[in-house]
Amino acid sequence: MKKVPVLEIFGPTIQGEGMVIGQKTMFIRTGGCDYRCSWCDSAFTWDGSQQAELLNVDEIIEKLETIGGAAFNHVTISGGNPALHSGLGEVVKMLQEKGIKTAVETQGTIWQHWMKDIDEVTISPKPPSSGMDTNWEQLDEYIRQLNDREDKEVSLKIVIFDDKDLEYAVDVHQRYPHIAMFLQTGNEHLETADNSWLLSHLLNRYEELVEKVIASERLNEVKVLPQLHTLLWGNKQGV
Amino acid sequence: MKKVPVLEIFGPTIQGEGMVIGQKTMFIRTGGCDYRCSWCDSAFTWDGSQQAELLNVDEIIEKLETIGGAAFNHVTISGGNPALHSGLGEVVKMLQEKGIKTAVETQGTIWQHWMKDIDEVTISPKPPSSGMDTNWEQLDEYIRQLNDREDKEVSLKIVIFDDKDLEYAVDVHQRYPHIAMFLQTGNEHLETADNSWLLSHLLNRYEELVEKVIASERLNEVKVLPQLHTLLWGNKQGV
Repeated sequence: MKKVPVLEIFGPTIQGEGMVIGQKTMFIRTGGCDYRCSWCDSAFTWDGSQQAELLNVDEIIEKLETIGGAAFNHVTISGGNPALHSGLGEVVKMLQEKGIKTAVETQGTIWQHWMKDIDEVTISPKPPSSGMDTNWEQLDEYIRQLNDREDKEVSLKIVIFDDKDLEYAVDVHQRYPHIAMFLQTGNEHLETADNSWLLSHLLNRYEELVEKVIASERLNEVKVLPQLHTLLWGNKQGV
Repeated sequence: MKKVPVLEIFGPTIQGEGMVIGQKTMFIRTGGCDYRCSWCDSAFTWDGSQQAELLNVDEIIEKLETIGGAAFNHVTISGGNPALHSGLGEVVKMLQEKGIKTAVETQGTIWQHWMKDIDEVTISPKPPSSGMDTNWEQLDEYIRQLNDREDKEVSLKIVIFDDKDLEYAVDVHQRYPHIAMFLQTGNEHLETADNSWLLSHLLNRYEELVEKVIASERLNEVKVLPQLHTLLWGNKQGV
């Protein structure tokens, strides 16, 4: 198999975002991304500041079990963009054989066959504030391939920093009205260590987003969520 | 039809708890409960402190539309225990005809045929700290009736105040391993108006609960969540 560049494996902890919010899970965070979002909260996965370790499937499973013991039954693969790595297919397959559920988050730019095996796929197209462009035809095809699976789920998640991002979210929601849609408060203060200030700031931002969604007749079906791990632990990595 | 005692209709706002957390929704809060939980956060529905209004189906729908306008497509029925009221069947039917999704929360003690029509049913058995007893055979039957529906969901939610409550949650989870299970931090400070203190206190309580769930090999599948509306708005009613 191809080895996978892994930046961190940690947990069990709580998934802080999106469709699986609150779920007890282990995290595998892979290195590398085809995007460079201006506000990326995991820029260490692609900016060269941290060194990934190239691991094969057995090494990844062994690390999960050493760190998590018997206290997990759910694994989230995050990045960076984990869809860069074909080698994850064997990891997903082995986790499934062990009866462990899997989730992944990706922007939906690169297809991998193993995406079809993931129980909970979160596709997170990036809004204008990120500085990235969306290839809509590519996204159409990505969602089409994931939406017709049985007993597996797919959702969209958009991080919102400003009103243009919210307009973008409306566009995405209208393009894919039957896909569960999550809006999430963006965190533009990635460097602060003042957790008390950050908490207050992010809850204010969350309330503002809630109020805008409440007022919009075009966003009646969506879910609006904060990042629970940031409310609890601020910008700390590996929790 | 039988009229329904309604204490408040409000929204659109965000569902702060459980399986539909973050969902934009209207709330119908009915009066009356067969339980008297020691820590009930809506005791005004049954302690005589607030007067319910007896409304028929047309009046309930009209109020929803007057208050919510066109800015909602989801209605949550809460209480008290809304399962006391057979008259809600017509409300649920009319909402369905309008293409509006419905959710309900009940402790699972009283059956109503309209439960089967609700898109998202949250059953919240009450743990020891509530002072209430669980009738397990009744709960078995309740869950059995709701679990075999197509395209509709059922979940369990347990509010946790102490370690005995967490043991109770383990029992519930082991009895119904295939039902999605949500654990929620209890709020024992229902009277405080010091929202800043309450926020800090509830996040500490939430972190403690997260840590206990993380450590338990018997709670690998659960989701652990705070009450988002209490983090945002404290103990304020009608939000």
